[in-house]
Amino acid sequence: MAIKDGEQYLRSINQLKPSVIFKGEPLTGDISEHFAFRGLLSTQASLYDMQGQEEYIDSMTYLSPHSSEPVGLSFILPKTKKDLKRRRAMMSLWASRHYGFLGRSPDYMNIALMAYVSAADVISPSNPEHAENLKNYYMYCREHDITLSHAFIQPAGTRLSALTDSFEDSIAAKVHEYNQDGMIVSGAFFLATQAATSEEILIYPPPTLQLDEHNPFTFAFAIPINTPGVTLVCRESYVHGDSTYDYPLSSRFEEMDTLVICDQVQVPRDRIFLYGNASVAHELAQESQFHAQVSHQTLCRYIAKTEFFLGTAENLAKLVDLHSDTMNEQISEIIVALEILKSLLVQAEEKAKKNKWGVMVPDKGTMLVTNTYFPKIYPRMVEIIQQLASSRIVMIPSEKDLQNDASYDLNKYLKISDTEAFDVIALNRLAWELSSSSFAGRQVQYERFFFGSRQNVINRLYQGYSGLRDSSELISRFLES
Amino acid sequence: MAIKDGEQYLRSINQLKPSVIFKGEPLTGDISEHFAFRGLLSTQASLYDMQGQEEYIDSMTYLSPHSSEPVGLSFILPKTKKDLKRRRAMMSLWASRHYGFLGRSPDYMNIALMAYVSAADVISPSNPEHAENLKNYYMYCREHDITLSHAFIQPAGTRLSALTDSFEDSIAAKVHEYNQDGMIVSGAFFLATQAATSEEILIYPPPTLQLDEHNPFTFAFAIPINTPGVTLVCRESYVHGDSTYDYPLSSRFEEMDTLVICDQVQVPRDRIFLYGNASVAHELAQESQFHAQVSHQTLCRYIAKTEFFLGTAENLAKLVDLHSDTMNEQISEIIVALEILKSLLVQAEEKAKKNKWGVMVPDKGTMLVTNTYFPKIYPRMVEIIQQLASSRIVMIPSEKDLQNDASYDLNKYLKISDTEAFDVIALNRLAWELSSSSFAGRQVQYERFFFGSRQNVINRLYQGYSGLRDSSELISRFLES
Amino acid sequence: MAIKDGEQYLRSINQLKPSVIFKGEPLTGDISEHFAFRGLLSTQASLYDMQGQEEYIDSMTYLSPHSSEPVGLSFILPKTKKDLKRRRAMMSLWASRHYGFLGRSPDYMNIALMAYVSAADVISPSNPEHAENLKNYYMYCREHDITLSHAFIQPAGTRLSALTDSFEDSIAAKVHEYNQDGMIVSGAFFLATQAATSEEILIYPPPTLQLDEHNPFTFAFAIPINTPGVTLVCRESYVHGDSTYDYPLSSRFEEMDTLVICDQVQVPRDRIFLYGNASVAHELAQESQFHAQVSHQTLCRYIAKTEFFLGTAENLAKLVDLHSDTMNEQISEIIVALEILKSLLVQAEEKAKKNKWGVMVPDKGTMLVTNTYFPKIYPRMVEIIQQLASSRIVMIPSEKDLQNDASYDLNKYLKISDTEAFDVIALNRLAWELSSSSFAGRQVQYERFFFGSRQNVINRLYQGYSGLRDSSELISRFLES
Amino acid sequence: MAIKDGEQYLRSINQLKPSVIFKGEPLTGDISEHFAFRGLLSTQASLYDMQGQEEYIDSMTYLSPHSSEPVGLSFILPKTKKDLKRRRAMMSLWASRHYGFLGRSPDYMNIALMAYVSAADVISPSNPEHAENLKNYYMYCREHDITLSHAFIQPAGTRLSALTDSFEDSIAAKVHEYNQDGMIVSGAFFLATQAATSEEILIYPPPTLQLDEHNPFTFAFAIPINTPGVTLVCRESYVHGDSTYDYPLSSRFEEMDTLVICDQVQVPRDRIFLYGNASVAHELAQESQFHAQVSHQTLCRYIAKTEFFLGTAENLAKLVDLHSDTMNEQISEIIVALEILKSLLVQAEEKAKKNKWGVMVPDKGTMLVTNTYFPKIYPRMVEIIQQLASSRIVMIPSEKDLQNDASYDLNKYLKISDTEAFDVIALNRLAWELSSSSFAGRQVQYERFFFGSRQNVINRLYQGYSGLRDSSELISRFLES
Repeated sequence: MAIKDGEQYLRSINQLKPSVIFKGEPLTGDISEHFAFRGLLSTQASLYDMQGQEEYIDSMTYLSPHSSEPVGLSFILPKTKKDLKRRRAMMSLWASRHYGFLGRSPDYMNIALMAYVSAADVISPSNPEHAENLKNYYMYCREHDITLSHAFIQPAGTRLSALTDSFEDSIAAKVHEYNQDGMIVSGAFFLATQAATSEEILIYPPPTLQLDEHNPFTFAFAIPINTPGVTLVCRESYVHGDSTYDYPLSSRFEEMDTLVICDQVQVPRDRIFLYGNASVAHELAQESQFHAQVSHQTLCRYIAKTEFFLGTAENLAKLVDLHSDTMNEQISEIIVALEILKSLLVQAEEKAKKNKWGVMVPDKGTMLVTNTYFPKIYPRMVEIIQQLASSRIVMIPSEKDLQNDASYDLNKYLKISDTEAFDVIALNRLAWELSSSSFAGRQVQYERFFFGSRQNVINRLYQGYSGLRDSSELISRFLES
Repeated sequence: MAIKDGEQYLRSINQLKPSVIFKGEPLTGDISEHFAFRGLLSTQASLYDMQGQEEYIDSMTYLSPHSSEPVGLSFILPKTKKDLKRRRAMMSLWASRHYGFLGRSPDYMNIALMAYVSAADVISPSNPEHAENLKNYYMYCREHDITLSHAFIQPAGTRLSALTDSFEDSIAAKVHEYNQDGMIVSGAFFLATQAATSEEILIYPPPTLQLDEHNPFTFAFAIPINTPGVTLVCRESYVHGDSTYDYPLSSRFEEMDTLVICDQVQVPRDRIFLYGNASVAHELAQESQFHAQVSHQTLCRYIAKTEFFLGTAENLAKLVDLHSDTMNEQISEIIVALEILKSLLVQAEEKAKKNKWGVMVPDKGTMLVTNTYFPKIYPRMVEIIQQLASSRIVMIPSEKDLQNDASYDLNKYLKISDTEAFDVIALNRLAWELSSSSFAGRQVQYERFFFGSRQNVINRLYQGYSGLRDSSELISRFLES
Repeated sequence: MAIKDGEQYLRSINQLKPSVIFKGEPLTGDISEHFAFRGLLSTQASLYDMQGQEEYIDSMTYLSPHSSEPVGLSFILPKTKKDLKRRRAMMSLWASRHYGFLGRSPDYMNIALMAYVSAADVISPSNPEHAENLKNYYMYCREHDITLSHAFIQPAGTRLSALTDSFEDSIAAKVHEYNQDGMIVSGAFFLATQAATSEEILIYPPPTLQLDEHNPFTFAFAIPINTPGVTLVCRESYVHGDSTYDYPLSSRFEEMDTLVICDQVQVPRDRIFLYGNASVAHELAQESQFHAQVSHQTLCRYIAKTEFFLGTAENLAKLVDLHSDTMNEQISEIIVALEILKSLLVQAEEKAKKNKWGVMVPDKGTMLVTNTYFPKIYPRMVEIIQQLASSRIVMIPSEKDLQNDASYDLNKYLKISDTEAFDVIALNRLAWELSSSSFAGRQVQYERFFFGSRQNVINRLYQGYSGLRDSSELISRFLES
Repeated sequence: MAIKDGEQYLRSINQLKPSVIFKGEPLTGDISEHFAFRGLLSTQASLYDMQGQEEYIDSMTYLSPHSSEPVGLSFILPKTKKDLKRRRAMMSLWASRHYGFLGRSPDYMNIALMAYVSAADVISPSNPEHAENLKNYYMYCREHDITLSHAFIQPAGTRLSALTDSFEDSIAAKVHEYNQDGMIVSGAFFLATQAATSEEILIYPPPTLQLDEHNPFTFAFAIPINTPGVTLVCRESYVHGDSTYDYPLSSRFEEMDTLVICDQVQVPRDRIFLYGNASVAHELAQESQFHAQVSHQTLCRYIAKTEFFLGTAENLAKLVDLHSDTMNEQISEIIVALEILKSLLVQAEEKAKKNKWGVMVPDKGTMLVTNTYFPKIYPRMVEIIQQLASSRIVMIPSEKDLQNDASYDLNKYLKISDTEAFDVIALNRLAWELSSSSFAGRQVQYERFFFGSRQNVINRLYQGYSGLRDSSELISRFLES
């Protein structure tokens, strides 16, 4: 079978041994045993397991047009609305397993890659080989169920350096050399989430403004994560223990973010997708409809996550059982968000359109709206949990406190009505992790800036929304009537 | 034909001569000539005209199962999702004519009546005659295209009087006498919008809490608007002139709100739909799925109105042509609202379900969400117009100022770039009427409280949302996993 | 006495007969009899009456250093904090009479003129005559208790014309000719509030960016309001009746806004304060500390107005006597605003500093904060009134409805508990006028943009706040510690 | 000297060895060496050091009326506004040392104790001994510079148990026995912050509603923190390392919160301040003016903290040096908050009044407003830091990454313009700890609920605000005018 299972995934990740820096030291040994990664890897392995299970295989795979083997549905090049619905059903299954906490469950990059390859013809006129490379790479990933990460943002101080410094001194990501064997690349990329737990990495910086015919700052490629010269610098881990009682979320869903540094990395010729041509790079970004396609995945994820918030909010309210007007209003805010997200998903599929290459694309306007909406309501949902959990979560005992409390009897004092202290604390610990912990803080920033700064996301909507002109003309006609 | 046209509508309204009090005096003469009503009546007549026009008749009517004549699609008892979509298409046409400003365009009450009649079987066991009356009345309205208004809220000080005062002294709406000929009713009802411009009025107060077997405060009926004993007290009119240049909205869309006072009104026997049985009254309110059905109409209206705001906002921004980040964000807020409303409509139809009597009902949860969402964003959209229009709308000249300005040359000073003063002022006057005038103020209050106080609307959602239990259990299972 | 009383004021206003355009026609007859002006004029006359009354004269006047006659305290050149406190006490008395609804009660311009004259020495080096003119004019106004208005903003499309068009074609306000007798000026100015009810007008457009040595777009002067060539174009009036029952606010406090058009206006030589020198104009604007000084007046006004909102909110809540959590929160929001405004006033005086000319200036930072804060909370207070008044204000009967209701008995149905219908309706009409009428809408825009666009007000604060550097360095030191 | 220094403080804390449970195990060894406490203790020791230093001693102490030794100014029973200003100056010095992050720097409890003792005469009539105990205890604390903590909130499930269960079974805090030697108490109390780093603890639960003459659930007392039967259960520590570079805040300011469990605790007779009399307990709570007095301290703290946020925000904005409108607006929001807090402090002192025992109390209304305002703006300031820091803080390297980066050269890629990577990262780590870490999350909850739930704080204001009646009557008079 082309799909892999959890065990295959873990084995592959452990064998790759990329250069990972954790707290200033190279990480050694099996990643799957490392405290900062094992919970995440176990969750991710369970995702891969799902797709092969009898219960799910039909709804999570399709037969590869190449190998006739079942391959993951998130790889599919959708041609019909039905394809979109199948893909969505598959992604919803994964999202319901990780409750939307994994920003980089594998389906995200599978769709991203598919989006680029769907517009590969943009590359062909200027470089048919690169276009072919991209198509082959997509097929390779699909047939081997490759776990892919990506990097495209450069650190704040580096990008301008392409314009202001000499090529030699520039610290912007750049191609040093391009020749028969491939190309040599250096540069730094921010925020490759889950890079250390992926098999490959796709690097595709947004093209610079430099308009030279031959632009060494413009390129795209994919390489194995353990390619020499690639270093992954980890942030601090927010895993503070293995107890799923104390850390119900971080013990399972803490994705590591890394800074990717490429130092004279040799990219093989057949892995180059773009080089030197900024206008083609722009066109590919545009024509791939990247945002509309990957948002299909993120929207499934948003829905699962919002449902998780709703249940937590309701259970917190039920715990103290007052149901004040204020509580009802707060919970209703989450209900409203959940149904809005579900509706946006229905509409995105309902109004989907084929692009010029026959690929079915979820409605762009709807998706741009979603990408503006969720970063605004997510922090508010977090705040609602804080408000409902109140000062009760400032001091929460831990599992061990409950186990060893013979002398001070927590159980006696911390139960609420019929709810045992054990369950009260479990819910409070969840509320804490969801709303106030470092894990929560990173999730807030992650969701808030998932598709870029607020201003970028808004301008993308404002400029990309086709209905604006109609509304404007409606008013002009009205005033003339 | 069973559908009427604008001329028939105006003739009927003028002939009825109900008792209307305007500024403390009885209104005399043709209503269609009165400055406070003529603009509205002209707009409403144009709605009736539409449905008979060749361009629209097929999409706005269906063949009556009774008479085989074309009747208005808003009367339809929908049995399929396709029926819902047809009904929506019809309502969207009307909404696009009045841009959502008419809260009581006739389709609203047509659907309300249909909703009640769809659950008429709730009444049958206790009183088959009343159930039959309701069905006959629906058919009468549909076949004669009756323009209906309704009243159900009692003034703040009166309702409690049913519980605290003797029956004789009580100022709550009540049935004095119930006999072979019908019943005699007194009471006051707030906020019958467009009562003076309707042919009939349906009066159906929410049942009181009194649980006596025979409850004289529980009833429902419909009567001609000119029935003796019925007085309609108007509020101040916000029509300040006929000029569509100076008053682009109020000159066309100012619906009059009235207080309805019934003094010993004789209700004919065949117009009684409910009497004395509070539990049946409650059940009918519930089983009719009133909110889910009429919200199908209001949602079409919300979309048309939001589109109007979007166009106005965009044109205001284009006028000064700065497109600051702040402006883009403000306009994007309206885009987001518009697409959310459209999505909610798609989902409401997509998830519609048949009730036990085989009537197709738009998804209740989606509709309750809509009814919570719109009252929150509507005032915000008004505020966005205020912000975009800025101090420019504090002083706006009028049509006459432009006509007579030989000596002071407004045209010279008030044009902006290529936009002539005439067009600048037209847009500013629209912005004023939409955001800051008495007309605007009444619209804000109307939309804010359309389905009741914020707390009522939220509690209706919180209690009626079926997904809450699922989410709650999801978390309980997660914590046990 | 140098101070005037109401009768003198009205006589003067009626005698001036400036060129006022109302609904496209020249206004004739006594302004004090015109429906759109009489309520305002009566209120303003009562302000002038106050200052001469035995009860108030000591706290509202001081002895002129010139004439030893009592003159209005708002004219004072404050030298001590005690002077500031006296001035504030005087302004609070006027504000408590008009409840903060008059944006241009005479004290505003009195302080504005004082601010400019306090920095007149900025003008002397380049033109001692102009500096002298300004000082003389201030003394003239103080000794004759002149009612002054002002204009400085040019219509959106005109200002740029100074840069883009030839001098001849330019529609920016400009000096055509400057000679021994004075100067000839043309141009349009937005939003002179109360111009038609003032005796004089001060015109002082912000200097353009043009840096020519001799700049015909830079000037300042004051002239009698009836100077030939000056036309005042009124907006629509929001006075809809004289009844203080139906229109408790607009019948008393509706200030007219006008567009001022100057067509070849001859300015006498002794009334020119600035001409041609843009850098002096900039310096005067800066050194006068205009914002810090006039904000002392506006802050008194804000406090009176906020107190008015608080009382209205509380009475609305008491009417239905539920005191839900939501109501308490809404009212508390206004309490918080009121006490914050009061505190800002205390601090502004406490931290006041003398400028280089020995004039005591309220703390600039505090005042810039106030000017950012109030435009944000004012619309929110309006919204709170809307929320508390709820749908009850959608339909409110009028005074005449109550007088003539023999046949339909409003009194019976509209009382709430012990509050008679007459009082219920009076409160509701107030809530309507305060929150939803055209009068309310104009007040919202007026307060929102009183000191310019939100962005301007914020940038003025951000750039003018001296504490920013300290805070920044605090953090730098902390990080190094 | 009566004041202690840091060394004395640390020695005392280490010697006491109270029963502290940390991660389910008793804490052994010196607390000042424990990773979770050492940073905090070092900061707190530096506070004690300050007051004895020549630079500060005059402004931080006053001469004890008892011993004529210098004692801490936060103990003073203020009699004049000057006393308040001296106290404020002292507290501002401490707050500027801990930047407002310590919710329980010693001055807080010093003022709380002073507030209770100022109203000790409330206790005298019913029990002169208890009143005397309280006075003596205050003197003891002042003369020995005792570090005091307190506890008064009971866990959500326990308090009702006083009413619903038998005395024997009740899990509400209660007095088992009261006799010649003192009393025996059991119960649990939430959220004693810094209990493990204090010398004594004051326990004073709000009186229950039970109105029996003799109420065993009503009491107040203070005991040494190491009294047998007292167990302090710690929450998880948010100290994740000693590096002040990586953890600039938590390494210094992480206050531990504990659950206090009393199991048959023997309270000595001379430490009982209240017993059995619920009405006296209520009166003491009221008459002590607890909120108005301690808010004097919290307001100083709020100001220091807000200034810290302002500096951080400004430095974040300067780092990327764009100064967009949005950034200016965000920073201005913090400026507004800072100046409002400062103004509230000025007014609270300016309007302070003596109570019936001659103690000067900061203006109550102003303080209740402050307590409503800060919990609302604090989370918003946190959000502003998140927005300004953007996705840059999702992945931040650590000190060790910078030290060992020979092979991957972080310095090269992470500098921004002229700011070295070392400083960029330092600022980002601060932004992370301030806005997104567990430390930040706990601070948000702590500030949000410092004086109780939002609803409690609001109702306290609404009911305690004396200006409400005046405003209400103002409107009534206006409507009658």
